[in-house]
Amino acid sequence: MNFASDNVTGVAPEIAQALTAAADGTAMPYGNDPWTAKLSKRLCEVFETEVEVFPVATGTAANALALWQCVPPFGAVICHEDSHINTDECGAPEMFTGGAKLVGLPGADGKMSPDAVDAAIRRTGFRPIHRVRPSVLSLTQATECGTVYGLDEIAALAEVARGHGLTVHMDGARFANALVSLGCSPADMTWRAGVDVLCLGATKNGAWAAEAVIFLRPGLAGDFAERRKRSGHLLSKSRFVSAQVLAYLEDDLWRRNAAHANAMARRLADGLAALPGVDPGAPPAANMVFPILPDGLREGLRARGALFLDWPAERPGKVRLVTSHATRADDVDAFLEAARALSDARA
Amino acid sequence: MNFASDNVTGVAPEIAQALTAAADGTAMPYGNDPWTAKLSKRLCEVFETEVEVFPVATGTAANALALWQCVPPFGAVICHEDSHINTDECGAPEMFTGGAKLVGLPGADGKMSPDAVDAAIRRTGFRPIHRVRPSVLSLTQATECGTVYGLDEIAALAEVARGHGLTVHMDGARFANALVSLGCSPADMTWRAGVDVLCLGATKNGAWAAEAVIFLRPGLAGDFAERRKRSGHLLSKSRFVSAQVLAYLEDDLWRRNAAHANAMARRLADGLAALPGVDPGAPPAANMVFPILPDGLREGLRARGALFLDWPAERPGKVRLVTSHATRADDVDAFLEAARALSDARA
Amino acid sequence: MNFASDNVTGVAPEIAQALTAAADGTAMPYGNDPWTAKLSKRLCEVFETEVEVFPVATGTAANALALWQCVPPFGAVICHEDSHINTDECGAPEMFTGGAKLVGLPGADGKMSPDAVDAAIRRTGFRPIHRVRPSVLSLTQATECGTVYGLDEIAALAEVARGHGLTVHMDGARFANALVSLGCSPADMTWRAGVDVLCLGATKNGAWAAEAVIFLRPGLAGDFAERRKRSGHLLSKSRFVSAQVLAYLEDDLWRRNAAHANAMARRLADGLAALPGVDPGAPPAANMVFPILPDGLREGLRARGALFLDWPAERPGKVRLVTSHATRADDVDAFLEAARALSDARA
Amino acid sequence: MNFASDNVTGVAPEIAQALTAAADGTAMPYGNDPWTAKLSKRLCEVFETEVEVFPVATGTAANALALWQCVPPFGAVICHEDSHINTDECGAPEMFTGGAKLVGLPGADGKMSPDAVDAAIRRTGFRPIHRVRPSVLSLTQATECGTVYGLDEIAALAEVARGHGLTVHMDGARFANALVSLGCSPADMTWRAGVDVLCLGATKNGAWAAEAVIFLRPGLAGDFAERRKRSGHLLSKSRFVSAQVLAYLEDDLWRRNAAHANAMARRLADGLAALPGVDPGAPPAANMVFPILPDGLREGLRARGALFLDWPAERPGKVRLVTSHATRADDVDAFLEAARALSDARA
Repeated sequence: MNFASDNVTGVAPEIAQALTAAADGTAMPYGNDPWTAKLSKRLCEVFETEVEVFPVATGTAANALALWQCVPPFGAVICHEDSHINTDECGAPEMFTGGAKLVGLPGADGKMSPDAVDAAIRRTGFRPIHRVRPSVLSLTQATECGTVYGLDEIAALAEVARGHGLTVHMDGARFANALVSLGCSPADMTWRAGVDVLCLGATKNGAWAAEAVIFLRPGLAGDFAERRKRSGHLLSKSRFVSAQVLAYLEDDLWRRNAAHANAMARRLADGLAALPGVDPGAPPAANMVFPILPDGLREGLRARGALFLDWPAERPGKVRLVTSHATRADDVDAFLEAARALSDARA
Repeated sequence: MNFASDNVTGVAPEIAQALTAAADGTAMPYGNDPWTAKLSKRLCEVFETEVEVFPVATGTAANALALWQCVPPFGAVICHEDSHINTDECGAPEMFTGGAKLVGLPGADGKMSPDAVDAAIRRTGFRPIHRVRPSVLSLTQATECGTVYGLDEIAALAEVARGHGLTVHMDGARFANALVSLGCSPADMTWRAGVDVLCLGATKNGAWAAEAVIFLRPGLAGDFAERRKRSGHLLSKSRFVSAQVLAYLEDDLWRRNAAHANAMARRLADGLAALPGVDPGAPPAANMVFPILPDGLREGLRARGALFLDWPAERPGKVRLVTSHATRADDVDAFLEAARALSDARA
Repeated sequence: MNFASDNVTGVAPEIAQALTAAADGTAMPYGNDPWTAKLSKRLCEVFETEVEVFPVATGTAANALALWQCVPPFGAVICHEDSHINTDECGAPEMFTGGAKLVGLPGADGKMSPDAVDAAIRRTGFRPIHRVRPSVLSLTQATECGTVYGLDEIAALAEVARGHGLTVHMDGARFANALVSLGCSPADMTWRAGVDVLCLGATKNGAWAAEAVIFLRPGLAGDFAERRKRSGHLLSKSRFVSAQVLAYLEDDLWRRNAAHANAMARRLADGLAALPGVDPGAPPAANMVFPILPDGLREGLRARGALFLDWPAERPGKVRLVTSHATRADDVDAFLEAARALSDARA
Repeated sequence: MNFASDNVTGVAPEIAQALTAAADGTAMPYGNDPWTAKLSKRLCEVFETEVEVFPVATGTAANALALWQCVPPFGAVICHEDSHINTDECGAPEMFTGGAKLVGLPGADGKMSPDAVDAAIRRTGFRPIHRVRPSVLSLTQATECGTVYGLDEIAALAEVARGHGLTVHMDGARFANALVSLGCSPADMTWRAGVDVLCLGATKNGAWAAEAVIFLRPGLAGDFAERRKRSGHLLSKSRFVSAQVLAYLEDDLWRRNAAHANAMARRLADGLAALPGVDPGAPPAANMVFPILPDGLREGLRARGALFLDWPAERPGKVRLVTSHATRADDVDAFLEAARALSDARA
């Protein structure tokens, strides 16, 4: 009953097999291998346009490197105040960019509104030279609140950003979960809606350690290759990351894994909704549920071995339950059963 | 009628004379000169304790270097959202510190409350390693809103900060204006209230380019000398800065200049209060007035040569009028006279 | 016949099996997993002292992070001019440290002498504040020239460094190759000889992507955990790296793999020595051979599919041949056979 | 008898007067003042081309900011190993650039040769992505050895640099001393010979604290304004720096001051050449003499109050004697007289 995060899992069988298949034989290092070449080609197909692809091993690296490419040291990144880049990467974006500023905006359900973004850009950039220069708008899809921006919402935000000359970045740590939630294509959810660079996560959805920074606009990648190497994020045995992402895309594994995770979240939410005294929160659009559990219930579930985080972290009451490709329906049901038993005992 | 800022002036006569007196003769460079030695001694007397002093030429340098000394790259500085370090230094603190995060808090009158600071520290530092580490609380005295923290307010904020292990920094760009406003001693307004490091400004109050970073706690200065040199802020002819600050402190020039500036602000505010349709704002505690001037009045005054800024910068209505050591009562009166004439014409 | 590097291989079977075994089940992320805990314990045994261990995925990350921990931004790292940190990491140490300076020293066979190190420290640190502060001595073991420092050589260098207050760092990308070459213990080759922090490489000797930063002196690790997270080098599924290193140490796999690689290098060198017109270079101490091959021979071998690099990179003549845990004797023999045939044809 | 440096002086009378003249009245801050506008125009005339000018207060700031503008974090600056940027700025270029690498080349008389520069660029840039990218060639004119590059030497170096796509930077801390030494125009010594950006020093030649970063190629200045502000090097009362540089250029003050300093150096050198046991070094081209003084003589002169530095700093024998605009012939003669007396006493 580990719902602490979607990174508590190991690796999906299909990806493990791909690594086994890639284990033998020699290949040139540092991205000059056939797997990486194939991955670049594959992602052009998947995204229906010419993209430039840079695999890395962590989501923090993907985000921070992508932002470094797109924001000058004296620039600013507009983002949600609860975004992962703003609260959970120990300042990696600030480090890589040479000290760019993250301007965190409030917004319900983990989403920013176009008006709030417009106002923030105007306010931040008002006195050039004295104030930092707004350079990037960063969206998270699915959001840290488990919600999903609709295609029109993305387009509206991107339009505001582009109108002010900003680049649009998408943190796609849970990209596949949003993709199956919207039932759209990767192209629709990114460049067709105005996204310029995507950090496509695979780790949370079945890989060991695999993310891909994908530049969706020609020329935008710039000196990314140097930045990746310089930050220690170019793996010598790059086939290791590329093989994971290839397997992730093969036979729609990414969509299948995400669909399962999302379904498990709905199963959890539905079960919680039936419990007395539990506020199940909004129906989950992706693979996270944020119910409010009564005091005794949280402790009781934890005493029975359930793992989940208080959310927001510093204030108990609301909790976060995350499902994954590896979550079993049995585990969900056991959790709900325990919750039911505890609730009955309390009644 | 230039009320755009207190840095639109040249240099106070007493400081100009001190520079003339220091113009001839040789002295060892890089701070190894008699003026700098004398300044260190003088500031120990002025602050009634052993202090370590590092003169620099700009306020941005003073703040950014002081923060660099006190916050690790993976740390955070808690400050008011409208503080100069957060909005007007083009990210200098982020640059010098290697990308530390500034956590800007809202707060009426440019002031933070102890509760808000406490909550921000708890929230920011909740998940060590993932979140940045709260390391410094930065206060501005007088504030960017022209208000002044009382001694008990400073002490209450510092107590919260120290309780969490943070260092307390004071941006004293308008330190003297606050000092005469409170009528207290420099020691009272700093280390006796819990301030660890002060950036003492002289530029806005009569110097050409002179600020002093003053460490008020033994050992805190650490490697500051290297940081200052490495950032290009160690002047070879250091006597130039030290002589300014010495003259600034001599015969209470700093207090006299600040008292004049503050009096001119009150004269302005009193005059504005008598005008119909003008909201004069709160009575000024230091040398800034923030009235709301009707639309036609702003334009009319500007057409007559008055200079002042919209404040906040991106939204006209409220304006900022700043007085200085060099502001003449005649100029204030001319401004008020023009405003009166324009108001009468509009009525 | 790929002798381009020891990172052209995939993964050793034992390590692949360990990953398969770790593929299932949940575990807390970010290093809070049983594999990582076990690894820390295991490395204390292997190094016969209390060590602090931080697994990462690349050697560049390991080196740059370790140096960041030990050198201030205004500091200097003394190293060989041909060291990997100085020539092959795209300035990663400079980036992570906030711009510390690498002082590269010449030295035969990729080794520095104690006298050269002493002189460099004295020269670099002569004018404090104006010059950067010598803070770390970095050794590579085995060196980039395929040589190995003897235990007394390491001790002599470390003694000089410590006498000036420097920390001693060892880049152990090929640590195991040196270990079997000297036939000593890990403790002998590190802390007993004065090394404070080791970057232990596994990637070049059989892992996918696994290095461990090992602090051998209490207290030295400091804020390393924050630095690793902030740079994107803390893997969420940390078990993935830890499991590799555990398997690497199990049943002396690291020594066995290295012993094989070293033996293949000797086989290569011996074979080359028998060829007319070939200068085989010094007998290899580890897993690299640096022969001088006549012009036609290089091209001929490459035409037959052999892969190897010119060394130094910008000047053909001398080449570098690297063997690995996966190099087959057949491949070595085929290479030698081809060389012999080409030489005969030229004669 | 202070020959320690040309920054041991105060300020030239003409510059002091200019500051007095600028002391009163209001002007907009941060470079939006009439002095700065006039300076930009004046420097276009002086350099006979459209230039972009950014005054700052220190030479270290000028150099580090100019390099930051021209080199990416993953880039390299080719320079003389004894250049000020490499040895005397505590790593400021590395800090500002985000960790670019300075590649220091040996070279007689403080000069680099075109061949050495060509080889260094080829060697440094050989393995793109892995090695840092050579981006800037930095020359010092006059050099740290008191020599002066001839116009053809500058042109030859610049040609090599440009052939590889590098920008050419000139550290002109003693620009005027070289100018009068060569008897050429500022345009000849800079852009006509291939220099792209000049750091023009005034501090060592009569100003308090005034340097100008001058971009000699359209478009090269880029975001320099933001960089200057962000590093704390934009003075609020910018008129203070601009007025100094204006006075410095007025009536050829810069040339007159430099001519005097150079003449004093020749007087010193000529006098030393007449002393037994003294190697006067090469005849000075600018304002520095590097004689070898016997052991007793150095101590004796210092005992009589003479100030000068051992050069190189860590090894006594050779010393550096620097003259300036303020050096009096009497002082030179007194020094020579003392040396003569000491030599006679020793004989």
